[in-house]
Amino acid sequence: MAKLRTGNLDFDNEEVFPQLSLDCVIFGFHAGSLKVLLLKWKSREYWSLPGGWIRQMEDIDDAAIRILQERTGLDHIFLRQFYTFGKTERYDSQELSDKLSYIIDPRAWFDRTISIGYYALVDYAAVFPNPDEFTDECRWWDLEEVPELLFDHYDILKKALHSLRLELSYQPVGYNLLPEKFTMPEMMRMYEAILGRKIDPRNFQKKILHSGIVTKLDEVKRGVAHKSPYLYSFDRKKYQEVLEDGGLFII
Amino acid sequence: MAKLRTGNLDFDNEEVFPQLSLDCVIFGFHAGSLKVLLLKWKSREYWSLPGGWIRQMEDIDDAAIRILQERTGLDHIFLRQFYTFGKTERYDSQELSDKLSYIIDPRAWFDRTISIGYYALVDYAAVFPNPDEFTDECRWWDLEEVPELLFDHYDILKKALHSLRLELSYQPVGYNLLPEKFTMPEMMRMYEAILGRKIDPRNFQKKILHSGIVTKLDEVKRGVAHKSPYLYSFDRKKYQEVLEDGGLFII
Repeated sequence: MAKLRTGNLDFDNEEVFPQLSLDCVIFGFHAGSLKVLLLKWKSREYWSLPGGWIRQMEDIDDAAIRILQERTGLDHIFLRQFYTFGKTERYDSQELSDKLSYIIDPRAWFDRTISIGYYALVDYAAVFPNPDEFTDECRWWDLEEVPELLFDHYDILKKALHSLRLELSYQPVGYNLLPEKFTMPEMMRMYEAILGRKIDPRNFQKKILHSGIVTKLDEVKRGVAHKSPYLYSFDRKKYQEVLEDGGLFII
Repeated sequence: MAKLRTGNLDFDNEEVFPQLSLDCVIFGFHAGSLKVLLLKWKSREYWSLPGGWIRQMEDIDDAAIRILQERTGLDHIFLRQFYTFGKTERYDSQELSDKLSYIIDPRAWFDRTISIGYYALVDYAAVFPNPDEFTDECRWWDLEEVPELLFDHYDILKKALHSLRLELSYQPVGYNLLPEKFTMPEMMRMYEAILGRKIDPRNFQKKILHSGIVTKLDEVKRGVAHKSPYLYSFDRKKYQEVLEDGGLFII
């Protein structure tokens, strides 16, 4: 098996797949807002998505989990492979080589590479962002304020967001993002933050209840304006079933 | 760039990606029934999905189109990348080597390979199935009667069917599968054949009409039992819009 021409990359002597990489779009949700985690290259104002190489001895899902763990400190998070990017001209290699040869060996990076895209959805209050060896900052950006990104990472981000929004239509979301007990308006605001648009509250509540993924508790939320709304919690067994089957069709 | 150790494969001297392949699940629809196209290995009763290698100079979508075209004779078909298969132990290499070394060089095939999965949905009456150099038969199988498949192709087939069914919930289907003019029951039977289950006719008709992807014609279908049902045709512009955006939510 060929060892990748790694330039000044350090792969701990692990053999990796040639011409194949993995990019992670890490969405963070907290208090009604959706953000994305980006890395800033050392001593420059260049930004990109977290990513890495796939080891010969590891499943690609495990490679994604490893990269995510390295950048966020989190285990056991919702992670989804969404698309593999394989156009011959994914980006302008010459431009990238000009920009990045101060820190990496362009010969190691700019052969044609196919990249497998994963997205994650995490509670961003729980994350400790951690730059990699080429970057000196790792931080959350509002989706509306994302800067220009290196490689084809802006396209990858757009595609991830589109996939996440479509998957909302048939798969449950919210476990690990909402508090253990939550109100229907809180759950709906999470959907709205991810979708970037308003949804019809009556229809939403009806479909969520019909799906069986939440249980209505015999408890109301105190200290909020107007009448106290009921609290709900996820039915983990049903939630897991629907996650595996698809077929939720909430929105 | 490394040339793949190709054994007795003939790649027309094209360089291909090392350790990366592409598998196609070709679903055929006709007269209310859904089938899948499989290849039988020469002089053996072994079956597998059509597949191939990705050339260094071609987009992965173009590789899928080329492979599909070679096996079916069809251009311009609905083709969708659905998942990349990258477990370390996708299949039992020793078993495959024992079975297939009569025709291929096992060293060229059974290094760990990651495979990008595509599915297609075609009118199977329009297809001229065409085996490749390792196979002597290419034919349609009913989904309920699919034989044991080589490699991890049965898992790939299951995942493709699951993806197709989920995508039905937000993307239009039917163009090139239904006649130019069709009735609502005909369209609904196509959905039922793909989903493998009954759906609610009133809800279906309401959502399809609301989506705008079909236009009601000022014409009824003659010669059918009971009262003559109205004919519809696809609104191609709207169909294309919804295909690009997602967000149909029919079922």
